[in-house]
This record gives sequence, C-alpha cells and structure tokens, in this order.
Amino acid sequence: MTDAPGVVRITDVAALAGVSPSTVSKALNDTGSLRPATRAKVREAAERLGFVPDATARSLSARRSFTVGLLSTDSAGRFSLPVVLGAENALVGGQISALLATARHDAVREQHHVRSLVARRVDGIIVTGRTTEPRRPIRVPMPVVYAFAPSQDPQDASVVPDDDAGMTAVAEHLTSLGRRRVAYVGGRGDQAASTQRHDSLRTALRGHDGTLVGDPLYGEWSERWGRLAVDLVLGDHRAGDPLPVDAIAFASDQLARGGCDRLRDRGVRVPEDVAVTGYDDWDVMTLASRPPLTTVDPQLERLGQRSAELLLAAIDGRPSSGVELSPPRLVVRASTMGDA
Amino acid sequence: MTDAPGVVRITDVAALAGVSPSTVSKALNDTGSLRPATRAKVREAAERLGFVPDATARSLSARRSFTVGLLSTDSAGRFSLPVVLGAENALVGGQISALLATARHDAVREQHHVRSLVARRVDGIIVTGRTTEPRRPIRVPMPVVYAFAPSQDPQDASVVPDDDAGMTAVAEHLTSLGRRRVAYVGGRGDQAASTQRHDSLRTALRGHDGTLVGDPLYGEWSERWGRLAVDLVLGDHRAGDPLPVDAIAFASDQLARGGCDRLRDRGVRVPEDVAVTGYDDWDVMTLASRPPLTTVDPQLERLGQRSAELLLAAIDGRPSSGVELSPPRLVVRASTMGDA
Repeated sequence: MTDAPGVVRITDVAALAGVSPSTVSKALNDTGSLRPATRAKVREAAERLGFVPDATARSLSARRSFTVGLLSTDSAGRFSLPVVLGAENALVGGQISALLATARHDAVREQHHVRSLVARRVDGIIVTGRTTEPRRPIRVPMPVVYAFAPSQDPQDASVVPDDDAGMTAVAEHLTSLGRRRVAYVGGRGDQAASTQRHDSLRTALRGHDGTLVGDPLYGEWSERWGRLAVDLVLGDHRAGDPLPVDAIAFASDQLARGGCDRLRDRGVRVPEDVAVTGYDDWDVMTLASRPPLTTVDPQLERLGQRSAELLLAAIDGRPSSGVELSPPRLVVRASTMGDA
Repeated sequence: MTDAPGVVRITDVAALAGVSPSTVSKALNDTGSLRPATRAKVREAAERLGFVPDATARSLSARRSFTVGLLSTDSAGRFSLPVVLGAENALVGGQISALLATARHDAVREQHHVRSLVARRVDGIIVTGRTTEPRRPIRVPMPVVYAFAPSQDPQDASVVPDDDAGMTAVAEHLTSLGRRRVAYVGGRGDQAASTQRHDSLRTALRGHDGTLVGDPLYGEWSERWGRLAVDLVLGDHRAGDPLPVDAIAFASDQLARGGCDRLRDRGVRVPEDVAVTGYDDWDVMTLASRPPLTTVDPQLERLGQRSAELLLAAIDGRPSSGVELSPPRLVVRASTMGDA
C-alpha cells in the first residue's frame, strides 16, 4: 500500500528522530521503557512533521483511550454548543467519551488544553470555534477535525456550514414569491459570514431575475444595527410612498428581528410590503419576532455529528482531508409568506 | 476522629457486604484481584448505602483519574452552559479534566452516561439541570454535587441560585425609586422559578411600603406571554388614563422584553409610566429590549465554579451536605432608571 503524497508516515518521524519506528510508537503512546530524552526527541520530530498516527502505527500500540477531546474557543457557546452536542451525540453512539476543553479565546489556555488532551492520550480532537473564520491549526500526534471554524491548513479535515447553499435557497425562495428588488444587510464587514452570504445572494438573484438593490450594508451583529440598517434602506420613505425594495435579506436572525421591529415602527407591513429573511434559525429570535422569521437553519448539530464521524473514521485509520460543506435547510415562516 | 452522624463509612459498606474494608476499596476502585461476584456484592452494598469514599478510603487506592464528569440533562444549554463553563474553569485550575455527558432529558441516556462515568473512574460528578426543579439523585461510588437543579435528597450537596435574594433586590430597587404598586408576571405556574419569585417579591414589597397588585399571572416562558400578560395587567386602559400599576416585575428577561414591546405598542412609557424588571441577565434579551432591561444576574458561572470547588473538596475527603445558595446580582438599566 502506498500512502498519499504529503502524508507523514511513522518512518518519516523515525528518520528525523534517528530512532526505529517501534521506538516512535512507544514514545508517542507512552508505553515501553525509553529514556525521557528519547521520548522528547521523538515527540519534537512528530510535532514538527505534523505526524498523525495511522492505523498501522496505532496497531503497534495496545492502547486506545476511547476518549475524544472537544476543544472550543467559544465561551458564549451559541454556535459551538450545538456543534459540541452533535459531536457528543455521535461519540456516545460509538462508546467514546468526550473531554470538554473551553479556551475562551485565550491562546495560553488553549495551549494548556491541547497539552492536557495529548497527555491524556485522547484518540482524537474536534476543534470548534465561535465564528466561521479559518483558525490556526493545532499540532498534535492524533487525528483532528475542525468543525464550524475551518483550519487555515487546507490539508486538514474541516466541516463548515454551506453558506452559499443557504443564501441561494433564500434567493430562490424570495424570487419564487415574486420579490425582485432585494436589499442585503450583513453583520461585521470583515467576516465571511457577512461577505460570503452577500456574494452568494447577489449571484443567485441574478440567476432568478432578481436584483440586489444598493450596496451591502455592514455593521455589527445586533438587533440595533438591524433597526438602523432598515432606516438606511428606507431613507426618508413615508407610509404610502412606493418602496425602494420588496424584500430584505439579513445575515442573521438578530439583524432580521431588529429589522422587523423598525419596519413595523415605520408603518411598513411584513411581508405584504417587504418580505424579510434571517439566518441561523435561532428560536428565541425567529419565534419571538413579529412576524416569525423565515430563515436558514445551518443544522449545526448535524455538522457536529458529521465532524465526529470523520474523526472516528480517522481514528480507525481512514483519515479525510480538506473542507467538507455541511448542508443547511430553509425554514419558511410568516415574514415571507404571511400567516397561512 | 469521629465521623458526623449519618455519614456512611467504608466499614459500614464492608459490614453490609460481609467483606473487609480493603476488599471494599479494591472493589470500588477496580484494583486487585477479586471474584466478579464479590465486586458486585460490594458495589450493591455501597450503592444501597449511598457510600461516598472519604480521604481514608481513597488513600487505600493508588489511583485518581483527575477527571470529573459533567452530567447535564439540558440540551438547550441556556442555563446549564454557564454552569458547565464555570465548573470547567475551576477544574482547569485544579488540573482536572472534564468529561462532558449530556442526557437530553432521556433517562436511559442518563443511566448510560452515569455507568460510563463510573466505569472511567471519574473522581466525582457535577450534575446540572435545565430548571431549578429538584431532581432525582444519581447513586454512584464517588462524590456528587448538584448544580442549579438541586437533588431531591436534602443530604446531597447542591448549589442553587438564591432567587429569594434576587427578587428581594428587585423589590428594594423598585421601592427605592418610589414605585409602590407592582404587578408580577411569572412563567409556568408549576415551577419554583415562577412561584418562589412571586412569594419573595410579595414579602419584600410588604417590608418596603410597596404592594403587589392583583394575583400573580402565570403562563409560559415566552415573549408572547409577556405581551399578553401586559394586556391583562392594563385591562382596557387607554393612553392618558391613570395606570393600575407603576411597575411590573417579570420572572424572566424574555417575559420582560415582550412586556416592554406591548407597553410601547399601547403608548405606555417605560420607565416613566411603568418601570419594568426582568430576571436572568440574558444579554440578547436585556440589551436588545427597548429600553434595555434592569434585571437579576444569577451569576451561573460563579455557581458552577462553586459547585466544582465543593466537589474538589469532597474528592479531597471534605464532603459537604445540603443546599448552598449562590448569590445573585442586581443589574440596573434603562427600564427602571431611564437613560442616565
């Protein structure tokens, strides 16, 4: 059997460390009797090469901990929590326990967690983040899958939400309802969750006889900005005047909820005059909004579950590589369709 | 040294199982060579007595896993997540790893998790819940602390939010502002988080020349119910008429936010005409509300941290017993004080 090019093998680590492959195995699995200096040398070599033990190497070791690390950088947890829950769900099915490690955006704390997970010889690690911005990879001697926030290294295995499919579904839904002039309101302008959704919406609208009206509006991820953005879209429009748009696509449910509130304040009816869509399917926003929001559910639990499946496969010697897109789901409510 | 009355000692377990104390230790720590039937007999005896190994018993064992289980029944995570994060934070400080186990209100799944945590010989378990309703205790041969949702067994160690102190702070704040006629809106009427806060508010208002107006209103934990409840409080009041109340205390931020929206819809100014308070200090509600909400922060991370401290003490042979109240904090914003 020939390894794929670029895959670091146990013999590569052995060569760099100047020891035998079985010594590498002992050093990385903390078995056998080795001098501390030898162990350190092997670990340094493995870390430098980014070595991930494959099934052959693993079989040299009698040990598996049946434990997986869940490393999260997110303290708020709104996005990472469903990912973690989905992953944990899949792991329980595989009789694997999950070690929780939350780093709270603190690099030192993350390093501490990573070392601790390695010291406990977890079989693999799932790394989740607060946003979908690519993150610095961790270097550990076991398989890693990045969930939600992809690794900056395209060779790593990452599972991310398919925002392009989500926004395309929004554009198709709005145009199928006869809406043609759509404004877009994003959150922070320096984040892919804002900019990529804009690009996807623009492209998809063009393909369906729709038009993106005006420049994308970027601000912050808050209801307040959703309200302000509606004022920017409407300008000095007064109740009864022709409206500049017949739909507004917001990049989050919080933005959309603030938008609905301001539209109502200004006497614009949702969805009769302007249809509104959100993003995230966050129930406390979508259901409390007046009217309830049509939105995109990124299905984050499923994403977490899929990440765990990829990790378990990698632990079993079937590693994957590259970015996998996890499919979203359009959820239609009264903000586009009215009360049925 | 004499143990406190009611504390089950290793000798009690040994007597019930008809074996020596060192056999009990071996059986519970899975060390030494014992017949499976002996192990089973000891475990049954330990479970029946609710035995918690103390420092002496533990010292008979060479092993500590430096791992603690975090068992959560909550899949939504809004309340249990900060508790878990607080606990994890305290554990990291003590070089302890946290095994996450979420049961999702599923008794079979919870049993599976409990068995799995015991099999991994965690040093202790923190049990969290979705509500503050007392929950059935788990029976395991290691220390347990119940966080947020207390154990039904008053002998167990539980840490719960001090709702009485929270609502008393609300009453003192409102009366200090000259508000005297306060309506109360709870969530579900069959939950302590609704009923106890009512009782505390009524008692505290009496002590500060205030009055609770009308019966408590119970419904569901949603903004929608907050809006409906305002209609019940105002009756057929019209803008300009004298108001039946000068403050409304809601049992959650979601309720209070819905309430603010409906008060504005009906032309009642917050806080000039009616002051509004929430509960929970949930930022997506308190900050997005118009106006932002005065509320009570139950400091759940701190509660989780305290639970971990009690668990670590119990693991070190200093167990505690009974319910400890974790202090809340009043957070004042524009819904009672206006824009300063």
